[in-house]
Amino acid sequence: MALTIGVDIGGTKIASGVVTEDGRVLDRALRPTPADSPELVADAIADAVAELARRHAVEAVGLGAAGFVDETRSVVRFAPNLAWREEPLRKKVAELVGLPVVVENDANATAWGEYRFGAGRGESHVVCVALGTGIGGGVVLGGELYRGRWGMGGELGHMQVVPEGLPCGCGNHGCWEQYASGNALVRRARVNAAADPSSAVRLLELAGSPDAIVGQHVTDAARDGDAAALAAFEFLAGWLAQGLADLAAVLDPGCFIIGGGVSGAADLFLDQVRADYAARLTGRGHRPLAGIRAAELGPAAGMVGAADLARVR
Amino acid sequence: MALTIGVDIGGTKIASGVVTEDGRVLDRALRPTPADSPELVADAIADAVAELARRHAVEAVGLGAAGFVDETRSVVRFAPNLAWREEPLRKKVAELVGLPVVVENDANATAWGEYRFGAGRGESHVVCVALGTGIGGGVVLGGELYRGRWGMGGELGHMQVVPEGLPCGCGNHGCWEQYASGNALVRRARVNAAADPSSAVRLLELAGSPDAIVGQHVTDAARDGDAAALAAFEFLAGWLAQGLADLAAVLDPGCFIIGGGVSGAADLFLDQVRADYAARLTGRGHRPLAGIRAAELGPAAGMVGAADLARVR
Amino acid sequence: MALTIGVDIGGTKIASGVVTEDGRVLDRALRPTPADSPELVADAIADAVAELARRHAVEAVGLGAAGFVDETRSVVRFAPNLAWREEPLRKKVAELVGLPVVVENDANATAWGEYRFGAGRGESHVVCVALGTGIGGGVVLGGELYRGRWGMGGELGHMQVVPEGLPCGCGNHGCWEQYASGNALVRRARVNAAADPSSAVRLLELAGSPDAIVGQHVTDAARDGDAAALAAFEFLAGWLAQGLADLAAVLDPGCFIIGGGVSGAADLFLDQVRADYAARLTGRGHRPLAGIRAAELGPAAGMVGAADLARVR
Amino acid sequence: MALTIGVDIGGTKIASGVVTEDGRVLDRALRPTPADSPELVADAIADAVAELARRHAVEAVGLGAAGFVDETRSVVRFAPNLAWREEPLRKKVAELVGLPVVVENDANATAWGEYRFGAGRGESHVVCVALGTGIGGGVVLGGELYRGRWGMGGELGHMQVVPEGLPCGCGNHGCWEQYASGNALVRRARVNAAADPSSAVRLLELAGSPDAIVGQHVTDAARDGDAAALAAFEFLAGWLAQGLADLAAVLDPGCFIIGGGVSGAADLFLDQVRADYAARLTGRGHRPLAGIRAAELGPAAGMVGAADLARVR
Repeated sequence: MALTIGVDIGGTKIASGVVTEDGRVLDRALRPTPADSPELVADAIADAVAELARRHAVEAVGLGAAGFVDETRSVVRFAPNLAWREEPLRKKVAELVGLPVVVENDANATAWGEYRFGAGRGESHVVCVALGTGIGGGVVLGGELYRGRWGMGGELGHMQVVPEGLPCGCGNHGCWEQYASGNALVRRARVNAAADPSSAVRLLELAGSPDAIVGQHVTDAARDGDAAALAAFEFLAGWLAQGLADLAAVLDPGCFIIGGGVSGAADLFLDQVRADYAARLTGRGHRPLAGIRAAELGPAAGMVGAADLARVR
Repeated sequence: MALTIGVDIGGTKIASGVVTEDGRVLDRALRPTPADSPELVADAIADAVAELARRHAVEAVGLGAAGFVDETRSVVRFAPNLAWREEPLRKKVAELVGLPVVVENDANATAWGEYRFGAGRGESHVVCVALGTGIGGGVVLGGELYRGRWGMGGELGHMQVVPEGLPCGCGNHGCWEQYASGNALVRRARVNAAADPSSAVRLLELAGSPDAIVGQHVTDAARDGDAAALAAFEFLAGWLAQGLADLAAVLDPGCFIIGGGVSGAADLFLDQVRADYAARLTGRGHRPLAGIRAAELGPAAGMVGAADLARVR
Repeated sequence: MALTIGVDIGGTKIASGVVTEDGRVLDRALRPTPADSPELVADAIADAVAELARRHAVEAVGLGAAGFVDETRSVVRFAPNLAWREEPLRKKVAELVGLPVVVENDANATAWGEYRFGAGRGESHVVCVALGTGIGGGVVLGGELYRGRWGMGGELGHMQVVPEGLPCGCGNHGCWEQYASGNALVRRARVNAAADPSSAVRLLELAGSPDAIVGQHVTDAARDGDAAALAAFEFLAGWLAQGLADLAAVLDPGCFIIGGGVSGAADLFLDQVRADYAARLTGRGHRPLAGIRAAELGPAAGMVGAADLARVR
Repeated sequence: MALTIGVDIGGTKIASGVVTEDGRVLDRALRPTPADSPELVADAIADAVAELARRHAVEAVGLGAAGFVDETRSVVRFAPNLAWREEPLRKKVAELVGLPVVVENDANATAWGEYRFGAGRGESHVVCVALGTGIGGGVVLGGELYRGRWGMGGELGHMQVVPEGLPCGCGNHGCWEQYASGNALVRRARVNAAADPSSAVRLLELAGSPDAIVGQHVTDAARDGDAAALAAFEFLAGWLAQGLADLAAVLDPGCFIIGGGVSGAADLFLDQVRADYAARLTGRGHRPLAGIRAAELGPAAGMVGAADLARVR
């Protein structure tokens, strides 16, 4: 059975793995990301790939990187974390490893992994929304990864949902990811706790002060029934549902997959997302409701997806 | 050369035409829409098709209808104007005319017509936005009409752009088409004229009173430099640009086509749409700018698109 | 008993009356407003006053005018309807009639009338909100009419309630009177009827079309249970309550009086205003609730109030 | 010359002082606030007053307390920091000290201090806005402190400026103090720094991370030209100006005084507040512009104002 390597290039580490045709990870290699020297990233990748290629017969390599990847899956136009501009990553790595290479946006790779081997199995039209610092979006349409005309499709977190809203790292205001992401959840929990400490007793017990609240505190306090933490999840659920309803108006997918770190607390908010989505969907009553599911593959989804996308079909 | 018939089923008339492979309309037939008797619409269509089929050798028939059409292009799930619910239009018409029939959403047919023979020629990823009473949306991705999992894709006018905004006919609040459509333009012009009649001298001269303003008044007054009318176009342009930027975040198309009745005044607002779009696009500076163009085919786009979609390829 | 004359200078007519110390109108005189010749308004007023003064022994004259009146109650700084700028109305009329004259903002005069002889009797801190084309505001604090440092206090309708909201005649956006006035009620009813005609059957029966809806239609349809009309009143009530809650944060009045044409339909919305106000008032639970009452004097309130304000005390 | 004692009851300390008729502080006494035992606060106050009264012949005592004070200046209806409910503070302290006592809201006392001896000297209609954790509001109208019908007037920070906006400690959403206060400034600076660290180099150098930013960092970074810090001040200035314009619509004051901790950085934002206010004031062009000035008395304003309000006149 043909094997490929998937590489997830993160801000702090580069996670590589040998992946089978049915999505299993046979072997792994880890390298720190030379974040201060972006020009050394290709060398670190090649080093990890070489290690794995010595132990397994692999056909190709798929790289997942945060940033804008061009439509030929070759060049990283812009990567905020690594300060890349028009980086010819495919060419660099291919020359170093002597294998076919493709580059993919990391959220696209994650979506593909979930579509092929995770919560999206059996679907044809899948929208994946990964909630972390921001929102990582990936879209599969008619069984194919959707990249857009120039590879920039699926930047779902940057739809504007609030006119003149909160500033976003992209330079705009009111982007969806400022209202429905892990960061947004924490920010809301802090505001709630500061506005009414009496509603946030457990949350403040865990965190010490509003400013010290992090995501785990919000999840833990919500499980203990803390009102401020639960209200933060309601806020997240409401905005998540709104954005999904907006995407349904455009894409009419068969299912949505909610991933990212926050999805570990899916039991705390996914039912409300489903209810709010059903209440806000345009044309409701005249169309089927898309499924809304938690991701299944966890952090490996990006590596597995990138490996699979490298496979020649 | 193979010919097909396209049919545009409107609220007041049914426009049919014989269309060539390169998008020319050779012949036409018109029937009034039996709006009070939706069950007679299929008969009226068949009658017009029969008339055209007597004069031309045609291969197939494409029907464009306002409403939700299922993904098999057979059934109209819901048509607000004709009170259809789960109407098996394809089967009905096919039995009456003895030709292969497909049913398409009218805005999808329009988008396809512009993609194949109009402002979208040579593009692969096209988003068409028709500004009328509301917004009619159609999307072509990778050279294929995009329908979504259940045929409900491309309902672009129902993305929410203002939380708790104006009520929409779809039952939601704050939908894009309440801010960027022909109706929205007129509504804004009326508000502007009522708020400050001294800025709306020409507009009020044409219309008589704020309540009597219609679209043509706004266009004519704007051409004469009326401040209230120009401000209404600026309002339209700003919201149109914002929605296009949102769609670019999701779809990254190669071009947008602006159609519908308002597009006849494209010279009054399209440059501002382009400027606002460029200023609001997420990732601007790191990606190409999609073209923003006025539609070219006019009211025939839907008929021509429906005819072409009926063609076996 | 000492008598004074009150004059209500409207856009189409000038209504004058002889008023007793306890607020009864003994006699009236009416003149058309020479709207095209603002310089003739003083003559028309003097003419009516002279007529009344021939029949009654009067002490003084109070004039109520729409517009900004300076803090010395002498000069109309700006009157949108009559195109006055820095009009020395007190001096002009006093010279013509040979009696002491004061000029008041018409909404202030109305508030004073209701405070002295209407719904505000027995109160010390009263906020009067008259719902018409816009919002006319008048404030009585500690038993005295509140004018502000320069006579411009009480322009309540121009608090901003929606950032970047609807344009207002004052040149700003999002003013309260764009959301809570007779005009706002009608505008909302039109939008509701256009968005969902099936919810507006009675309203459209009365009006013919959404654009033809006027205030009386909304009231009549609401009384008949029309959903779109009732929703328009709910919209009005919600925004009215929000503005009253904002005013209570600043002024903490003992009661609010709701006047103007719309107050004839007070039974349709005042209970909801009270409920929404109680739910939104800052500090609720720790403070008494101000009364919210319909005005009692009707259109005569302005004339009666102006007459009473002219009285030397 | 008659002397009175002013007492500023804060959350951590009770500051008392002997104040002359012209607002000078002759002597001071400080006590820690027994925050865990609200019933002991009166004793601590009495203890400090007794100390001062031994050294000076004083006529009366004025107490300034955060919270709702009733209109008879006797009872604290509700004090969030000290968990008081219907606390008869005037009676308690008067019995202990054997002097006439009045109780005032602390922001009212501050406003009165500035009106009498600080930035409001010579004015008659003054609105004081103290920017700290929230907004402390105090209003002087016609040379008298304005308390409202039940003592709850001047809660300026709880006007709603954003519908469905940020949650506030008062239980509402979108209150002014969530957008224009010291806390709001810091929150915005954190959001700005997180959204675009490259614009916040100096700010992050001072604070270490977005979450660690405090007010002094924002001020210092802004003085060094940090873009994110300057943008936070612009945000503050814009919302401050909007609220002042709203207050001017209601109250038409002769001047606004901006106090509180943030006013130490008045040079960084007050000019913009003035410009934005002038651009947003309803009726601009037809009325004088109120002055907008930084407070002059600093933290002593509350004590001085409370002392002066205790004086019999």
